Amino acid sequence: MKRRILSGMRPTGKLHLGHYLGVLQNYVRLQEEYDSYFMVADLHALTTKWCESGSIRESRRDMVLDWLGAGLDPAKCTMFCQSDVPQHAYLFALLTMITPVSWVERNPTVKEMIRDLDLKGNVNLGLLSYPVLMAADIMAYRAEAVPVGRDQVPHLEFTRELVRSFNHIYGVDVFPEPQAVLNEFQMLVGLDGRKMSKSLDNHIIVSDLPEVIRKRMMTAYTDPLKVRRDDPGHPEDGCVIYQYHKLLHPADIQDIKTQCEQGSLGCVAHKKAVAEMVIERLAGFSSRRAGFAEDPSTVDRILAEGSLKASAVAGETVRLVREAVGI
Amino acid sequence: MKRRILSGMRPTGKLHLGHYLGVLQNYVRLQEEYDSYFMVADLHALTTKWCESGSIRESRRDMVLDWLGAGLDPAKCTMFCQSDVPQHAYLFALLTMITPVSWVERNPTVKEMIRDLDLKGNVNLGLLSYPVLMAADIMAYRAEAVPVGRDQVPHLEFTRELVRSFNHIYGVDVFPEPQAVLNEFQMLVGLDGRKMSKSLDNHIIVSDLPEVIRKRMMTAYTDPLKVRRDDPGHPEDGCVIYQYHKLLHPADIQDIKTQCEQGSLGCVAHKKAVAEMVIERLAGFSSRRAGFAEDPSTVDRILAEGSLKASAVAGETVRLVREAVGI
Repeated sequence: MKRRILSGMRPTGKLHLGHYLGVLQNYVRLQEEYDSYFMVADLHALTTKWCESGSIRESRRDMVLDWLGAGLDPAKCTMFCQSDVPQHAYLFALLTMITPVSWVERNPTVKEMIRDLDLKGNVNLGLLSYPVLMAADIMAYRAEAVPVGRDQVPHLEFTRELVRSFNHIYGVDVFPEPQAVLNEFQMLVGLDGRKMSKSLDNHIIVSDLPEVIRKRMMTAYTDPLKVRRDDPGHPEDGCVIYQYHKLLHPADIQDIKTQCEQGSLGCVAHKKAVAEMVIERLAGFSSRRAGFAEDPSTVDRILAEGSLKASAVAGETVRLVREAVGI
Repeated sequence: MKRRILSGMRPTGKLHLGHYLGVLQNYVRLQEEYDSYFMVADLHALTTKWCESGSIRESRRDMVLDWLGAGLDPAKCTMFCQSDVPQHAYLFALLTMITPVSWVERNPTVKEMIRDLDLKGNVNLGLLSYPVLMAADIMAYRAEAVPVGRDQVPHLEFTRELVRSFNHIYGVDVFPEPQAVLNEFQMLVGLDGRKMSKSLDNHIIVSDLPEVIRKRMMTAYTDPLKVRRDDPGHPEDGCVIYQYHKLLHPADIQDIKTQCEQGSLGCVAHKKAVAEMVIERLAGFSSRRAGFAEDPSTVDRILAEGSLKASAVAGETVRLVREAVGI
């Protein structure tokens, strides 16, 4: 039997190339190997966006279309929406009972979010409790593994701690300690050389039209010392286009390096070429996505079916948990 | 249409005379006047008893038998168990998103519980969040009123604040601000003159057999200066038996006072007489309770039916809330 994994993404709207190469392509591989549960984490979105929740439903649709476009297949994996599966909140409530406040207060991600959002002294209980909700998500499926980036491995430790704690307190073996499945892909740089992110506006939206992608690519950071084509370039000193090329078409990267350094390849021409690589890489995605987008009810239907499947597993977990706790 | 109220009791096991006279008799009146939801608050029990939850199910049975014995009628009110109605946890999770941590940290009841349980620095998230769960309980039924003792009115303010906050943030009018329905009965003194409480072991368990009640009543605190029957008594200086008499049979209290003071009524005789008053007062209760206890499935059946009814109302609330939030 395949091992069960759970992963979720907050519904932030249309995904960018960093999500696509870093997360979605990984999901597509995982669905073959694992009994995979992919979740639209809309309750998590509320931990920070509780007062601007009006766009969540649209973002959720956009995001799931991106999932489908990338190749997630409802016949191979379970896609669902967190708020449609009430067992997440139920387990969350039960897990708060056994979670020391100090565990969440000292949680590095919580601290980071409070710092990044400049919230100190003004934090809501949902944000403070976010690691418990994340644990509930994973534990609802008694997931044996969780796909994470190398930098996210510590996040998983919180869930593992709660799993051990629950099993110990109630003298049961309901939950396995989830293992990290490392996602080897590294974070993609954005057009300005920082990490690609919507909030930095340095991103390529994968569902954008080719002409939009071409235009965005022209704004990418390249070697500022290479003003004209025949100036010698320094492609490894942070040139974003060079990095994309290396990633998307590693075969000829040595040639490209030489041409850039020797002044036989100009930045504009290189930007155009790499834009076409991006567009080509996304061709299958774009046509699949467009197919799914034709019928506006597709996403809702897939999520509804996924939620039923997810609820069946999570419902059995809740049954086991209630039996263990004695309620 | 009747106004809707919600009230709950933690499943602490067999109820004592203080619960009976102070809460249950009030519930019995309320079920006539209101659309009443009475809840076994087992999730609340976990906020403090998470590691000793093994007895909750038995306590719940004992408590609901006491409710039925007191005259709560499943045809007139809805009795249900909190953990059977998943919408409580769902609303709890959503409400944590909009609840500032400072609101719960400064909550007087939370502070009191932390002090009483000597927990400082070692508080679990469920205990800290307890006012939010209580608000979720009330809001799940969009309850317009909550029966509370005079000392509990401030507790309701937290829920009222969350109601206003939710309606304001999401620009809706989903929740009414619940009003306090004052419970006029004052707390009953225990056999030692302090507040009646199981943990002080100064209580009379209403489902105990008459001979047990008689024996317990003999231990009640009376005037220590009245050693023999003909010593002059000081009934109003804290004599517990005198207070019970006044409460259960106020008609002849002046006579009794005189007899006690004049030395024509001894403490032992008075204890015996008041014990009979208690037993008589509980006669209807005891026989009704015994009737319901005959079939061990009765409580489960009544709670299952009540949970269905409660879930229908709370489910509609969740629907309205999700629509308002946009998830």
